[in-house]
Amino acid sequence: MVLSHTTHPGNIGAAARAMKTMGLGRLYLINPRYFPDPQATAMAAGADDILQNAVVCASIDEALQGVAFTVAMTARLRDISIQVQTPRDAMPQVLQQAATQPVALLFGTEMSGLTNEEMGRAQLGVNIPANPEFSSLNIAASVQVIAYELSAAAQSFVPGVQEVQPAPHERVEGLYAHLEKTLFEIGFFTTQNPARLMQRLRRLYSRTRLEDEEINILRGILTVTTEYNARLKARYQQEHKDV
Amino acid sequence: MVLSHTTHPGNIGAAARAMKTMGLGRLYLINPRYFPDPQATAMAAGADDILQNAVVCASIDEALQGVAFTVAMTARLRDISIQVQTPRDAMPQVLQQAATQPVALLFGTEMSGLTNEEMGRAQLGVNIPANPEFSSLNIAASVQVIAYELSAAAQSFVPGVQEVQPAPHERVEGLYAHLEKTLFEIGFFTTQNPARLMQRLRRLYSRTRLEDEEINILRGILTVTTEYNARLKARYQQEHKDV
Repeated sequence: MVLSHTTHPGNIGAAARAMKTMGLGRLYLINPRYFPDPQATAMAAGADDILQNAVVCASIDEALQGVAFTVAMTARLRDISIQVQTPRDAMPQVLQQAATQPVALLFGTEMSGLTNEEMGRAQLGVNIPANPEFSSLNIAASVQVIAYELSAAAQSFVPGVQEVQPAPHERVEGLYAHLEKTLFEIGFFTTQNPARLMQRLRRLYSRTRLEDEEINILRGILTVTTEYNARLKARYQQEHKDV
Repeated sequence: MVLSHTTHPGNIGAAARAMKTMGLGRLYLINPRYFPDPQATAMAAGADDILQNAVVCASIDEALQGVAFTVAMTARLRDISIQVQTPRDAMPQVLQQAATQPVALLFGTEMSGLTNEEMGRAQLGVNIPANPEFSSLNIAASVQVIAYELSAAAQSFVPGVQEVQPAPHERVEGLYAHLEKTLFEIGFFTTQNPARLMQRLRRLYSRTRLEDEEINILRGILTVTTEYNARLKARYQQEHKDV
C-alpha cells in the first residue's frame, strides 16, 4: 500500500490497522505531512509494527522502485487515461500480478486524490462504487475496502501463467524520460503539447505492459534516432557552412 | 445501522460518512458516550445530515422497535448462538428482508463488541473475515465494509417472494418475556439456569422467524398453561386444606 502526501497522521494509523486486519503489512508513505506521530500510533491500535516498518519516500518514483504493476485508487471517473475497474473485478488481476512480482496499490492525498502525474504511473485504475452525491470515502476506509476485497479474492485465487514479464517501474520511467528527451531533440514538441503527449504515450505503454527486453529495443531505437538526427544536423552544417 | 454504546464520538462521525458514501442514511445510537460532539461532526466530513437525523436510544429494544430482522456484527465466532455468515453471503438475505420490512445492522461497542443480551436480539450474525492474529476492525471501518457489501449486493438484487412475514422485534420480545414469566410460574427454573435457557429458546425462535399470528398462538398456549397451573394449584389446596 502506498499513501501519497497524507495530511492527517490519524489516517495513516487507521490505514495501518485496516491493512493488518486483512493480513497486509507493507506500507509506503510518500511525503506524509506528519509521520511518525502520536495520532498515527493511537489510530493504529496495535498495528504499530506496520507503522514501524513503514517506508517514507520523497517521491512516487522512489516508492515504486522495483514495482511492476501499480494500481491507482480514484474517486473520479473523468479524465482518467487508464482502464478503471471496480475493486471486485480488479483484485483477481492484482493477485495474479502479485504472484510473481511486487504490486503497488496507490492512494492519493485526502482532499484531492492522486495527481495526473501519479495516475500516469499506474497500469490500472480502481474506483470504489459510491453514492454519486457523496462519493468521498475516508482514505483509511478506502484502504479497508480494498484490503478486504484483496483478502476475499485471495480465498478463491489460483495463479495462472503470466504471458508477459513486465519490467519494473524505474525501467519504464527510464524509457519515458529517454523518449521525452529524444522527442524534444528531434523537434517534435514544437508542434505538440509535451505534457499532454507524454500522458498519451504513458497510456499506450501502460496498456502494453513492457518487458525488459522490449524497453531495450525501444531505447535502442531512440538512441539511433538521436544519432541519425545528429548526423543529419552535422551534414547540414557541413553543406551549409555559410548558414 | 445501529451502533451500541459507542465510546469515541469520532467513530460515530466516521461511521456516518461511511454510510453516506454507500447511500445509507438511517443511524440509531444506543447510549453513545458523547453525542452530539464536535469530533463526530469533524469525522462525518459532510455527512452531517446523517448525524442530525440520528436517533439516540436508551436501550436496544427502543432502537429495534418495529424492526423485523436484526443482523449482529461479531468479531468472535465462539459462543455464538445464531448462524454466522460472511458479509458477502449475508447481504442478499438482508436485502431480501429489507425489501418488505425494517432491518437493523447492529454494531457493538469498540472494546468488546456486542453483549450476549444484544446478540440474543439478532436473527443472523455477520463476521468480516479477518487476520486471525489481528482481527479487530475499527467500528467505522466495519460499517464501511458492510455498507459497501450491501451496496454491491444491491447492484444485482432481485426481490423474491417472502415465505414468512416476521413479526416486529417488540412482539417477539413480548413473547420471550411472557415465556420467561410462565416458565418461572410453573417452577421450570428450579432445575434450569434461567439466563442460559432463555438464550437457547431465543436461538430456536430466531431461526424460526415467528409471524404475528404464531406469536398469538404461542402466547395463547402460555396463558392457558398459567391458568391450568393456577387451577391445579387451587384444586390441590382445596383437597389438602390441612396442608
